[in-house]
Amino acid sequence: MTTQHLVDQIHKKKSFLCIGLDVDLDKIPKHLLATEDPIFEFNKAIIDATHHLAVAYKPNTAFYEAYGLKGWQSLQKTIMYLNEQHPNIFTIADAKRGDIGNTSTMYAKAFFEDLAFDSVTVAPYMGKDSVEPFLNFKDKHTIMLALTSNQGAFNFQTKTVEGVELYKKVLETSKTWKNAENLMYVVGATKAEFLSDIRKIIPDSFLLVPGVGAQGGSLQEVCEYGMNDQIGLLINSSRGILYASKGEDFAEAAKVQAELLQSEMMSILLKKTGA
Amino acid sequence: MTTQHLVDQIHKKKSFLCIGLDVDLDKIPKHLLATEDPIFEFNKAIIDATHHLAVAYKPNTAFYEAYGLKGWQSLQKTIMYLNEQHPNIFTIADAKRGDIGNTSTMYAKAFFEDLAFDSVTVAPYMGKDSVEPFLNFKDKHTIMLALTSNQGAFNFQTKTVEGVELYKKVLETSKTWKNAENLMYVVGATKAEFLSDIRKIIPDSFLLVPGVGAQGGSLQEVCEYGMNDQIGLLINSSRGILYASKGEDFAEAAKVQAELLQSEMMSILLKKTGA
Repeated sequence: MTTQHLVDQIHKKKSFLCIGLDVDLDKIPKHLLATEDPIFEFNKAIIDATHHLAVAYKPNTAFYEAYGLKGWQSLQKTIMYLNEQHPNIFTIADAKRGDIGNTSTMYAKAFFEDLAFDSVTVAPYMGKDSVEPFLNFKDKHTIMLALTSNQGAFNFQTKTVEGVELYKKVLETSKTWKNAENLMYVVGATKAEFLSDIRKIIPDSFLLVPGVGAQGGSLQEVCEYGMNDQIGLLINSSRGILYASKGEDFAEAAKVQAELLQSEMMSILLKKTGA
Repeated sequence: MTTQHLVDQIHKKKSFLCIGLDVDLDKIPKHLLATEDPIFEFNKAIIDATHHLAVAYKPNTAFYEAYGLKGWQSLQKTIMYLNEQHPNIFTIADAKRGDIGNTSTMYAKAFFEDLAFDSVTVAPYMGKDSVEPFLNFKDKHTIMLALTSNQGAFNFQTKTVEGVELYKKVLETSKTWKNAENLMYVVGATKAEFLSDIRKIIPDSFLLVPGVGAQGGSLQEVCEYGMNDQIGLLINSSRGILYASKGEDFAEAAKVQAELLQSEMMSILLKKTGA
């Protein structure tokens, strides 16, 4: 999917909501556990109930790998379902991969070709030649960790390197890489006050913003400091939507939570576009 | 596996060789492609031919994920074969994972419980709460990226943070984390001259050292600067062993290459222990 197509979808749906499909078998409604593939059944119900409210879905690979081969199969079925039923939805494999060049190419093939995701998250620690193999894929997007939503972000990401914080160094350096127009960045909603500075370095890039909801980030603040002319934001919510109810009404409850976020987004978008 | 058990195996086998099982279907002998599971058949033949020469095997997950569900199945069969046939072999899932706390716990379950690896590689960028969930597992080992073998290591890892290079900051900081005794570190053989400094910070930790062979690192130099009283090194070779021959004699050719490395290691060990 091109970036322009994603922007068009945001305006059409009046939403920049991404729903994180982080499915924990200990947290989903008990009645689903009797089905052949509880993870896929759960995802399918969530997608069916919310696809008109979200522009992106983001399965985190950890939650699938934890269930071994069966989990990987559920991931495969989920992305196939999304691609077949909702080709206008932007899909993100939240995998945080990164390795030496020829190995990163294998990861890129795994997520862009075999599973056919639109994008994948990567870690920056190994530098340019660990990320550029992902950037080679046309109309695919590589979403690099910049400033994450967790407490551990303060261990290294905010330390000063050659006069700027490491996460800014990561932004500045990666801007110069080949096919950098295929880069997006992860910035946690819990660190919204950093977004003004971030926008000075990467005014045009899309940001994937986790941490609204369960982790305590504010949607209003993220938009105030992080939105650009193309909107440039995908706000992720996972637990707050997925586990809104543990009963048979889980999908309906998820829809209500997604509607709350989407209506807040619509209001922000209307203010911004003056419509 | 405990660290002491690994050290005992090194002395028993007179080897600290780790064989990287990075299986690329484009590079393996053509006759294997007709089998039901070419990746597993290749791994099984390599393991059968070299298990007396190596103390560790390290499949890199990228090479399995690239083949989707079938690849994950090959990974599962490979680790099961290693655990059943060679319980004294130390196994490493080279996955370079890392995520926020509850998600890292899912990755730890995937590799330590579902697949039953002895260890997994992780990336440090997200900090303490992204790594500690791995460290909670008793007799399991978490191998954190410190200074990698690729060119991109110079983008961020060697930049100065609060007076020391980032990779040293990573070593110093991680030493203080809970259950840090379960930490090992990745240091590339192409950067052997950095090992003296690294040993000043982490004198006792095991190091996983890729980059000997295809990437150009020197075994002698790595041992000179990196070996400690417990040996403290696992030297990885992947392509140099796996693809020594493209013919039906590939396993025999792999054995010859592994013997070359093991005999060099034996000579170094004999000099060190004075035996």
